[in-house]
Amino acid sequence: MDYPNDLDPGAPVRGGVPEHGRIPKYYAVKAQLTALLNDLAEGETLPTERDLAVRYAVSRDTVRQALRELLLEGRLRRQGRGTVAAGPKLAQPLSLASYTEGVRRQGRRPGRTLIGLDRFPCPPALAAETGLERGEPVWHMERVLLADDERVGLESTYVAVARMPHLDTEFDPDSSFYSYVHERLGIDFGSADERIETVLATPREALLIGTPPALPMLLIHRVSYDPAGRATERVRTLYRGDRFSFTTRLGADSQ
Amino acid sequence: MDYPNDLDPGAPVRGGVPEHGRIPKYYAVKAQLTALLNDLAEGETLPTERDLAVRYAVSRDTVRQALRELLLEGRLRRQGRGTVAAGPKLAQPLSLASYTEGVRRQGRRPGRTLIGLDRFPCPPALAAETGLERGEPVWHMERVLLADDERVGLESTYVAVARMPHLDTEFDPDSSFYSYVHERLGIDFGSADERIETVLATPREALLIGTPPALPMLLIHRVSYDPAGRATERVRTLYRGDRFSFTTRLGADSQ
Repeated sequence: MDYPNDLDPGAPVRGGVPEHGRIPKYYAVKAQLTALLNDLAEGETLPTERDLAVRYAVSRDTVRQALRELLLEGRLRRQGRGTVAAGPKLAQPLSLASYTEGVRRQGRRPGRTLIGLDRFPCPPALAAETGLERGEPVWHMERVLLADDERVGLESTYVAVARMPHLDTEFDPDSSFYSYVHERLGIDFGSADERIETVLATPREALLIGTPPALPMLLIHRVSYDPAGRATERVRTLYRGDRFSFTTRLGADSQ
Repeated sequence: MDYPNDLDPGAPVRGGVPEHGRIPKYYAVKAQLTALLNDLAEGETLPTERDLAVRYAVSRDTVRQALRELLLEGRLRRQGRGTVAAGPKLAQPLSLASYTEGVRRQGRRPGRTLIGLDRFPCPPALAAETGLERGEPVWHMERVLLADDERVGLESTYVAVARMPHLDTEFDPDSSFYSYVHERLGIDFGSADERIETVLATPREALLIGTPPALPMLLIHRVSYDPAGRATERVRTLYRGDRFSFTTRLGADSQ
């Protein structure tokens, strides 16, 4: 019997073709482009839209739709005026350690660009999530996340000013916040609650991260706690869905 | 100082408006519709496209773009010919327990529809991921996942025929596979490796799950192991990105 999904258990079954057998034209082109991409090394250039339209005997609009999906899925990326094969997604572990550690473990160079650092009174929603007092001063730090100088995410961190009063003068925003809290302030991380969803980038986010508008993103909400169970931070991190995946190992205690 | 993101630490900062201040028209409409949706109960009907275009003094195309994003993000859903406010996303725990347990914990009724159950010789990619012998007989079971009769996902499970030779006759496909393996076969789950990414639904998947084409999905790859470290199953589960989020609690050992 035929193996149902192109030999790869991670691939969609039957190449994504509906049982009624009517394959949308753009999808047939996408399947052929996928095969083509499998033979290209990272950074190698794809033929032009015009050439692809001729090769597959379809309209340029059809080629464009196939290319757009492959772009959103991170199989290719724009480079100058051309389109090149993209590398595999970064596989970031879900862990108490920071973005920095995860990226470094994959042999990439982490970086961050500060967008802003503000102080404001803790609003009710943040108080409810963290146990902070309503109205107590809170920092909001927003940073673009980089991997090998490529913009890959956007992070908002909310922390109580009382716990880190000198964040604005002491902390280098292009360094690991986890290291600052752990090593400089001596605050240990005990646990964290995370929630992952997929959302579309807002226009502001797309601009800051430099992605096409409405690119599917992975959004991770996190509340970290110290070993005594007090909330240390509330973090909202948006990762490019075309560049990231997240891994975790579940143990018998996570039933 | 103003709180930067509409009082909710999980919301995008500054309502998603770029610093240069040029708000795309569709996004301004989307923001107003979001406020409108916050006041509607689940299942309440939205005004028609035509009425919304008049109300916000924009073209119907602009309204349609805003509605499309809200639809992809799960804030609203089609019902008959109208559009209604959707409920919150299901927050499914990442755990060794099955889909069934997670959905039940949220007070929903889990269900599954069998698409197919095939036997085939284990191909190299599956052998590499699971430690099975190349060519040994393997089951592939594909099921649509339901929550309260709504189609919400599509699952492919790969298991060795040697470990569960009577899967085709013994197992009720509209029941929990986890319970079958655990309770009927007496195989314990020791651990599992999972990887989460966002992908676009293929035409076949969109048809089986009944979603709009190219809806962003959450794809979870999983290899489960028994306490002796032998792979029990390789699972590929696609969840509607507009209906699901995933939660996890990280402990100090997950650094």
